[in-house]
Amino acid sequence: MRSEIIADHAKDGWRLERLTLASHSGSHVDAPLHKFAGAASLDEIPLDRWLGNAWIADLRNAKSDERFTAERLEQRLPENLNDAIVLLATGWGDRRGKTDLWLHHAPLLCRQSAQWLVERGVRGVGIDYYSVGDAETHQELLAAGIWIAEDLRFPPEVFQLKQPVQFWCLPINLKGHSGAFCRPVIVA
Amino acid sequence: MRSEIIADHAKDGWRLERLTLASHSGSHVDAPLHKFAGAASLDEIPLDRWLGNAWIADLRNAKSDERFTAERLEQRLPENLNDAIVLLATGWGDRRGKTDLWLHHAPLLCRQSAQWLVERGVRGVGIDYYSVGDAETHQELLAAGIWIAEDLRFPPEVFQLKQPVQFWCLPINLKGHSGAFCRPVIVA
Repeated sequence: MRSEIIADHAKDGWRLERLTLASHSGSHVDAPLHKFAGAASLDEIPLDRWLGNAWIADLRNAKSDERFTAERLEQRLPENLNDAIVLLATGWGDRRGKTDLWLHHAPLLCRQSAQWLVERGVRGVGIDYYSVGDAETHQELLAAGIWIAEDLRFPPEVFQLKQPVQFWCLPINLKGHSGAFCRPVIVA
Repeated sequence: MRSEIIADHAKDGWRLERLTLASHSGSHVDAPLHKFAGAASLDEIPLDRWLGNAWIADLRNAKSDERFTAERLEQRLPENLNDAIVLLATGWGDRRGKTDLWLHHAPLLCRQSAQWLVERGVRGVGIDYYSVGDAETHQELLAAGIWIAEDLRFPPEVFQLKQPVQFWCLPINLKGHSGAFCRPVIVA
């Protein structure tokens, strides 16, 4: 993301910035259009689908390069996930850095566990890393109409909350776009 | 705002857009830093200040070039506005167009009525037009630490709701910025 000050107090009487950034920058959501031509753009998803009951899978003990298996998720989540949001807390959001480790060896969802989430009828999947997984993982979720929220952060106090939590990730309303930044919050 | 597709399905396996836009584009908030050097940027305002009880002043019968007086607002709002959000519904959000009328003759708040709102201790002021008023109007509100939400839209069903409504306008979390886009919603 680039941000430039294009007006300022002394000269213009006000401050204004111009931003240049990918639609999938910072905390953001992926709509099915991100992977499939002709699929739903984010504004075609009803607003209330972006908020709801969420279960946080505490995976902060994940190893580098780990691929979460269905068994691993099963241990950290309740049995009934129908229409629920699943938040994968890997702890890697707090370690962000342009290191080889952070960029290329994060623990991620894989195709098989994405499929497991699809079978359980989840509504959306969030993760505290810039990507939920590889291309196939994205495809598995987005083909099922499950939205993805990436680059989240989970402050420590989140793990003390009674679950399910109420999670909101309303994206900016960009018509016809494949994704957009959001302001994710847990409403407690 | 400019949006370009910088990756697409056939060639890259996914769709991605690059946006170039002012921080105060579309539905957005102004922080005090918009008008005052060294004043609070949007990330310095506690998150829960961006949501709360809101009173909608139905001003859809406003005339072009009208400046809302304190008397006019008083007729459309309850007496106690302490820590409340005031939403000015002019109807001009629905008429958006690059016409001389829309661009230069909208009904607006003025300095005196902004001062009246400051005296009543409001928390934030929203309007369904790209600006709440002139430079002095902005100054009056922002100097008092009152945030401004601009370029809102009020769908007709909003006017049937029991007031106060719960209004949310959580902005994108841009550190050190004078404002940012938000996804404004009424939670009913």
